[in-house]
Amino acid sequence: MSTSSTPTCKLALVQLHVTADKDHNLANARSHVLEAASKGANLIVLPECFNSPYGTSFFPEYAESISDGPSVKALSAMAKDAKAYLIGGSIPERDPTDNKVYNTCTIYNPQGEHIATHRKVHLFDIDVPGKIRFQESETLTAGNQLTHFDTEYGKIGVGICYDIRFPELAMIAARQGCFAMIYPGAFNMTTGPLHWELLQRARAVDNQMYVAACSPARDLTAGYHAWGHSTIVGPGGGVLETMDEKQGIIYADLELEAMNELRRNIPVNSQRRFDLYVDVSKAKP
Amino acid sequence: MSTSSTPTCKLALVQLHVTADKDHNLANARSHVLEAASKGANLIVLPECFNSPYGTSFFPEYAESISDGPSVKALSAMAKDAKAYLIGGSIPERDPTDNKVYNTCTIYNPQGEHIATHRKVHLFDIDVPGKIRFQESETLTAGNQLTHFDTEYGKIGVGICYDIRFPELAMIAARQGCFAMIYPGAFNMTTGPLHWELLQRARAVDNQMYVAACSPARDLTAGYHAWGHSTIVGPGGGVLETMDEKQGIIYADLELEAMNELRRNIPVNSQRRFDLYVDVSKAKP
Repeated sequence: MSTSSTPTCKLALVQLHVTADKDHNLANARSHVLEAASKGANLIVLPECFNSPYGTSFFPEYAESISDGPSVKALSAMAKDAKAYLIGGSIPERDPTDNKVYNTCTIYNPQGEHIATHRKVHLFDIDVPGKIRFQESETLTAGNQLTHFDTEYGKIGVGICYDIRFPELAMIAARQGCFAMIYPGAFNMTTGPLHWELLQRARAVDNQMYVAACSPARDLTAGYHAWGHSTIVGPGGGVLETMDEKQGIIYADLELEAMNELRRNIPVNSQRRFDLYVDVSKAKP
Repeated sequence: MSTSSTPTCKLALVQLHVTADKDHNLANARSHVLEAASKGANLIVLPECFNSPYGTSFFPEYAESISDGPSVKALSAMAKDAKAYLIGGSIPERDPTDNKVYNTCTIYNPQGEHIATHRKVHLFDIDVPGKIRFQESETLTAGNQLTHFDTEYGKIGVGICYDIRFPELAMIAARQGCFAMIYPGAFNMTTGPLHWELLQRARAVDNQMYVAACSPARDLTAGYHAWGHSTIVGPGGGVLETMDEKQGIIYADLELEAMNELRRNIPVNSQRRFDLYVDVSKAKP
C-alpha cells in the first residue's frame, strides 16, 4: 500500500493493428482506448504512427494538421470519453505554417484538452545492409524540443521510437522530476530483438524511473514489420509487463512510493559527480 | 577477418578467489595473469579489491602506496612477464601526501610501466534494508578524475564498480574515442542479479562500445559475498562471454571493425541533438 498522497497511476499500452484505412485506425484506437479505460487505466498510450502505415511515402499522404485535423479531434474525444490521460501515439503531422511533415505525438488530459505535443527529435535513419534500411528524413523534419507534461500522478516525459537510443532525453526528464518516460515506437524485426527491451531497461535503471514503449502490432502484409512487444519496465530495470506481436493491451500500476524507496536505497541521484561532468538536465547547449 | 589495420585485442577477465592473505592474493593473481597471457591475451583485467577482503574495516589495514607498495611492484612484474596490458583491478591505496585511502586501479603496459591510475569516483554507499548496507565513504575518499589510456588497439576507459551506475563515464569515454570501457567491480547478491549485466549492456548499447566487468569469485566464508559473473559485452549490447561465481578466466576478441560497422549502420554518433542538450564529453562542469 502506498504511503504517499500521490494516487497510483494505472498505465495501459494499446498495441494496435494499423491498416491503410485512417478512419478504421481511428475507430480501432477508440474502441481499445475505451476498453483500457473500462479496466481502470488512468494513462493510456497508443503506438507510433497509429493512424497511417509506417513508411516514408505514406507520411506526406496521411499527414494532417494537429490544430484541427480529424485525428486530433478523434484523440481528444477518446481521452474525454475515457476520462483518462491519453498519449496519442504518433501521427504524420503537416504544419500549415511551414508545410513540413513531422512525426508527432499529441497528449490529452481526461477532459480531452490537448496539453502537450512531442515531435520526434531524432529521425530514424539507419542502414543495416541486407536487413533494414529506413530514412525518415526523406520526408520528415525533426522536432526541436523535449517534452514533459504534468498530471496529478506526477510529471511524465515523452519520446518517440528512435529517440530512445539517445539517453539524454530520459536523463533530463528524470532529473527534472518525471517519474516515467513513455515512448510510442515501432522497432522492426532486426532492431526489435536486439535492442527494444534493452533500451527501455537501460533508461529505467539509469534514471530509476518507469519506462514504457508502445508498438503497433506486427502486420506481415505491410511494408514495415513492427516488432510489437509493447513493454512496461519498472524503476529497477525489470520488465513489469510485456506481450507478443499481436494486437492487445497491457497494464501496470506505476507506484511512486516503490520508485522513491528504490531511489532512497540506491541514492545515485545525490551521488552524481557534477564536479567532474556536467548535469545534462541543467547545462544549456 | 578484420580489414582494419588496428590489431585485434584479446581481452581476458580474471575472476580471482580473494583471501585475507595479501601475499597469496598477489601470487594467485600472477599465476592467472600468466595463464591468460599464455592463451594469447593482450589485455588482462583483475577484479576490484583483488589483494584485500572487501570491507570498510579492511581498506585502511590493507592500504599501501601506489608509488612503491608491494602490490604495484607485483602488478608491474606481472604485466612485463605477461607482455600484456594489465588493468590491475583495484587495491586499497593510501596516499602518503594526504594519508587518505582510495579504491584505486593501476594500469600497466606490456613493458610493466605504470601508465594510468583510476581512483573510484563514485563511492559505493547504499542501504537496501534487510538486504545490503555498505558505506565505502566510512573509510574511503573518492577520486577526482576520469581515466582513459592509449594502447595500439585503441583508447580504453576505466571505471570501478559503482562508477558503472553513472552513465556519463562511458558516454564521455566513447565520445572521446575509447572503444572499450572496463570496470573491475564487486557487485553483491542483491545488486548482482538485478543490475550487473544490465548496466554493462546499457553502457554498451548506448555508446556502441565494448564493455567488460571483472568481479572477484564468490566466497561465502567472507563478509561480503561477491556476485561473480564477470562478463564481456559487445558494442551491440549482447553478452559475448560470461561465467558463474567461481574462480576462472574468460576471453573475447575485441574487433574494432565489427564495432565500426555497427556504428555506420546505426549512426547515433552523428545523429545526437547537441542543439537540444549538451554533449557531456565536451561541456565543462
